[in-house]
Amino acid sequence: MDSRKEQEWKKFKEEAIQRLLRDKDIGYLDPDIWDLLDAFMKRDKAFTYSSCSGRITIIDAIYPWARKDSSVIYKNHLVLSEDELEGVLEKGQIRRLWLIVQGPILHVYTMDSDEAWSILGIARSVGFKHSGILTENKKGVLIELRTGIRMVHLLRETSDSKVEGTTELVKIANEILKKGKEKKDQLRNAILSSIRDYSMKLGENPEGNFHVHNNV
Amino acid sequence: MDSRKEQEWKKFKEEAIQRLLRDKDIGYLDPDIWDLLDAFMKRDKAFTYSSCSGRITIIDAIYPWARKDSSVIYKNHLVLSEDELEGVLEKGQIRRLWLIVQGPILHVYTMDSDEAWSILGIARSVGFKHSGILTENKKGVLIELRTGIRMVHLLRETSDSKVEGTTELVKIANEILKKGKEKKDQLRNAILSSIRDYSMKLGENPEGNFHVHNNV
Repeated sequence: MDSRKEQEWKKFKEEAIQRLLRDKDIGYLDPDIWDLLDAFMKRDKAFTYSSCSGRITIIDAIYPWARKDSSVIYKNHLVLSEDELEGVLEKGQIRRLWLIVQGPILHVYTMDSDEAWSILGIARSVGFKHSGILTENKKGVLIELRTGIRMVHLLRETSDSKVEGTTELVKIANEILKKGKEKKDQLRNAILSSIRDYSMKLGENPEGNFHVHNNV
Repeated sequence: MDSRKEQEWKKFKEEAIQRLLRDKDIGYLDPDIWDLLDAFMKRDKAFTYSSCSGRITIIDAIYPWARKDSSVIYKNHLVLSEDELEGVLEKGQIRRLWLIVQGPILHVYTMDSDEAWSILGIARSVGFKHSGILTENKKGVLIELRTGIRMVHLLRETSDSKVEGTTELVKIANEILKKGKEKKDQLRNAILSSIRDYSMKLGENPEGNFHVHNNV
């Protein structure tokens, strides 16, 4: 990559970091994603673009993947309680109710394809098996990192149907959410140790790669 | 790509076609996938590597994504009947029972990354939104084409729990399977018309691109 392109790429990264810090300040980030994003930003040739640490949602939609004619009526990144589920079920619905648990998802731009393959290798090794390159554009190579951790459960078709076994449903949904969070932490640790390995090879200070001000 | 590499790639494609024809003969292929694979093979710079046309499975596992300590106790690519579901529920289980519906998934090798991006563009335009490049190796660029169509439903935690609403479950699972099959057909049509467009540009016979014997 020529130096002009490299400079331009670094500007994109700097902008991404600034946006992230803003989002963090206003409480717009997932409550438990910062440490993972921070780890990625420490790699010289990568920056995160969008992310989800894993979450439980309840969707009112004919199909759980629908974007239009679909409402998110519950969302929580940390835990679903039985009271919350009962509260949702007491209300009416327009379409079908789906309980969705998804594991962590990360979109990362890398400066070049070597860095993309390198991160994909690390991510797959800790269980982000549904990962790949989505596109290439002026911001670099965009990769998606994703696990197979997921539950897409039909709560009920109409509000006439009774939902049985909410206790076990809540327990299992939270268990699956937790499995996703564990994967998120494993990815963070793997990315951090990849930086340490690289820095040790160069004889550098491993904390020195994250070019951003002290308020991080 | 130099001509030696191109020859080598064509050998991989020819082997893939032969394997596919063998699988077709012995009934090993999904019952409704052939027309899709056939369409891809007609593109000069692509061959399919593995595929699923979409299916309904019932899994006995703690987690639905588990590979080990997991058994597939039901699998059907065409339709789930209420009797079949009741039959499964009458039997015992070791772990948890999950009803899983997945849309079509395709792995395709392309000769170069231009062809990979071109197919990814076509696939995304007809709703294969979870698609990307998985790896690059001597067989070419491996891409995965996948929709968001999916259901991962907890049937029951233990055989003590009663499963209510099996009629609506079966109806909705089949509906989702059908949505996946529609996407599969849309992808086939989009791939076929991409070949027609290309051949018309070259003034060729659109059927002439699939270099394989007459028994196809």
